[in-house]
Amino acid sequence: MHSFSAISDLYQQKRDSLVFPLTPSNLYGSINYFLDLPGKRIRPALCLMANELFTPIRSDSYRIAHAIDLFHNFTLIHDDIMDRSPLRRGRPTLHTKYDEGTAILAGDTLFIYCYLLLNKVDLIHRTHIVELFSETAKQVCEGQQMDIDLEKMEMDAVHYADYLEMITRKTSVLLGCAAQCGAIMGGANEQQQISLYEFGKNIGIAFQIQDDYLDTFGLTARTGKQVGGDILENKKTVLLVKAFEVADFKQKIMLKEAFLQTGQDKVQAVINSYKALEVDQWATKAIESYTAIAFGNLEEIDVPVFKKEKLIKRKS
Amino acid sequence: MHSFSAISDLYQQKRDSLVFPLTPSNLYGSINYFLDLPGKRIRPALCLMANELFTPIRSDSYRIAHAIDLFHNFTLIHDDIMDRSPLRRGRPTLHTKYDEGTAILAGDTLFIYCYLLLNKVDLIHRTHIVELFSETAKQVCEGQQMDIDLEKMEMDAVHYADYLEMITRKTSVLLGCAAQCGAIMGGANEQQQISLYEFGKNIGIAFQIQDDYLDTFGLTARTGKQVGGDILENKKTVLLVKAFEVADFKQKIMLKEAFLQTGQDKVQAVINSYKALEVDQWATKAIESYTAIAFGNLEEIDVPVFKKEKLIKRKS
Repeated sequence: MHSFSAISDLYQQKRDSLVFPLTPSNLYGSINYFLDLPGKRIRPALCLMANELFTPIRSDSYRIAHAIDLFHNFTLIHDDIMDRSPLRRGRPTLHTKYDEGTAILAGDTLFIYCYLLLNKVDLIHRTHIVELFSETAKQVCEGQQMDIDLEKMEMDAVHYADYLEMITRKTSVLLGCAAQCGAIMGGANEQQQISLYEFGKNIGIAFQIQDDYLDTFGLTARTGKQVGGDILENKKTVLLVKAFEVADFKQKIMLKEAFLQTGQDKVQAVINSYKALEVDQWATKAIESYTAIAFGNLEEIDVPVFKKEKLIKRKS
Repeated sequence: MHSFSAISDLYQQKRDSLVFPLTPSNLYGSINYFLDLPGKRIRPALCLMANELFTPIRSDSYRIAHAIDLFHNFTLIHDDIMDRSPLRRGRPTLHTKYDEGTAILAGDTLFIYCYLLLNKVDLIHRTHIVELFSETAKQVCEGQQMDIDLEKMEMDAVHYADYLEMITRKTSVLLGCAAQCGAIMGGANEQQQISLYEFGKNIGIAFQIQDDYLDTFGLTARTGKQVGGDILENKKTVLLVKAFEVADFKQKIMLKEAFLQTGQDKVQAVINSYKALEVDQWATKAIESYTAIAFGNLEEIDVPVFKKEKLIKRKS
C-alpha cells in the first residue's frame, strides 16, 4: 500500500505522459497553464488508493484517475467563469489570463480528453466506468446549477437540506465516483463498491463544510485565502444557511444588519452573530459527524485493516 | 431508402423518447427550450442515410445520430455565448433567455448526454465510434478557437488557407463524422468509410461557403437573416478573406474604406468592392467545386447508384 504522497507522485509521473497538441496555441497553451497550477490531486489519488485496497494498481486505474482529474479541472475552469473569479490558487484564472471564449473551449476540450482516456479502458469494465463517470458528471453540473440558483435567492430563504444537496452534487459525488472507480478496477464486489462510493461522498461533504468553516474561522496561513472572504462576498456558505435556519426573528434581523456593514467591521459582526448562534460549534460537529460516517463506510469493507490505514491517515 | 424528409421524421420520433429530468428546472428547462428551436437536423439525417446505403438502419445508428445532434446543439449554445449572439433562428439564445452560467452548464450537460448515448452502442463498434466522435469534437473546439483568433486579427492579415482550415474543423468535420459513423454501423469497409467521411466534410465546406455567400448576395426570404449582416459586423467571411487576398494595394485601401462606412451605405460599398474583385463569382465556383468533389467521393462507393440518389437529392 502506498501513502497518499507516494501515490500522488506515482500519479504525477503517469499524468505527465499526456502531451497536448501545440496548436491552436491559445487553446492548448491555456490548458497547459491551468493544469500546471498547484493542486492536491485528491481525486485521482483516492481512485488509485481504492484500487490498491484490493489489488495492485491496474494501468486502467491511472487512465480513470487522469480522466477524473481532467474533469475536475474542466469544472474549475467553467465555474471560475460563472463565479467571475479573478484568481485561483493565487494565480489568474484561465478566463482572466486568456479570454472567456478560450476558457469555455479549454474546459470543453479537457472534457473530451476525459472520454478519450476512458475509451482506452478494458471493454469488460468500460460500460460501467463510463456510466458512473457520466452520471456523476451530470450531477456535478446539476449541483453547479443549484449553486447558481441558491446564490440568487434571499439570504434567509435557503434551506439547509437544499444546500446539502447542492454541495453533495457539486463536489462530493466526484470523490465517491473516484473511489468507486478504483474499487471496480480492483475487482471489488458491489457492496464494497457502494461502501467506497459512500466513503468518498461523505469525506467530500466533510471537506466542503470544513472549507466553509475555515474561510470564516480558520487562519490565513492554513487556507491560503483571506479569512472572511465568503462573508465579504455574501456567499451562501453552510454557516450562513445554518445561521438563518436556527435564528429567531430578532436574530435574523441582527444577521442581516451585520451583512449590510462593510470591510472588517462586517466580518467581525457576522462572526459575532455566528458565534452567538453557535454555528461554529455546529459546523465542527458536522465535520466530525460526516468524517465518522465515512470511516464507518470504510469499516464495512472486509479487507485487512492495515490496507485501509493509508486512506484514514489521509484525513487525519 | 428513405428520403431526407422521411429520415428526418423517423429521427424525430426516436429523438423524442429521451426525456430530461425535471430539476434543476433552470438547467433542464433551458435545454428543452434550446432543443425545441426549429432546426434542419442535417447531421443526424446524414448519419442515418449513410447507414442505409449499406443495410437497414440499426438501432445504434439512432443513438449515434442523436449524440451528434446533441453535440451540435452543445456547440451552438457555447458558440452563442462566445459570439455574444442575442438571437438564434429568430428566438433568444439560451444565455440571453436564461443566464450565461446556465448556458455554459446546459451545454456541458448536453455533452454528457452524448456520451451516455454512445455508451449504449454495441461493444463491437463502440471504441471506434467514441474515438471518431471525440477526435471530431476536439477538432470542432479547435476550429472555434481558430475562429476566435481570426476574429481578433486585422482584416487583411487572414490567409484563405487558415480560414479554410478553420471552417473545416469548426463545421465540416462533424458532417464527415456523421456520415462515417452511419457507414460504420452499416458495415462499410474502411475505404467506403473514408469516402463517406470525405463526402460529408466536402459538402460541409460547400455549405459553409454558401452560408457566407448568401449572407451577402442572397435574398432575405431564403436565409431568414438580414442580408449584409456579416458586413455590418465586420465578420471574417470567406468573401472578406478572399477579397483581401486577391486585392492589390489600392483595392485593399478601397475595401478598408468601404468597411469604415455605416449602415446600408457600408453594405453597398463592400458589395461593390466584392463584385469588382469578382469574389462573388469565385465563391459560386468554390461551392460548385466542393460539391463536385463531394459527389466524386460518393461515386467511389461501390453500392448501387439508386441507393446514393437520396443523398445527392438532398443537396440539389
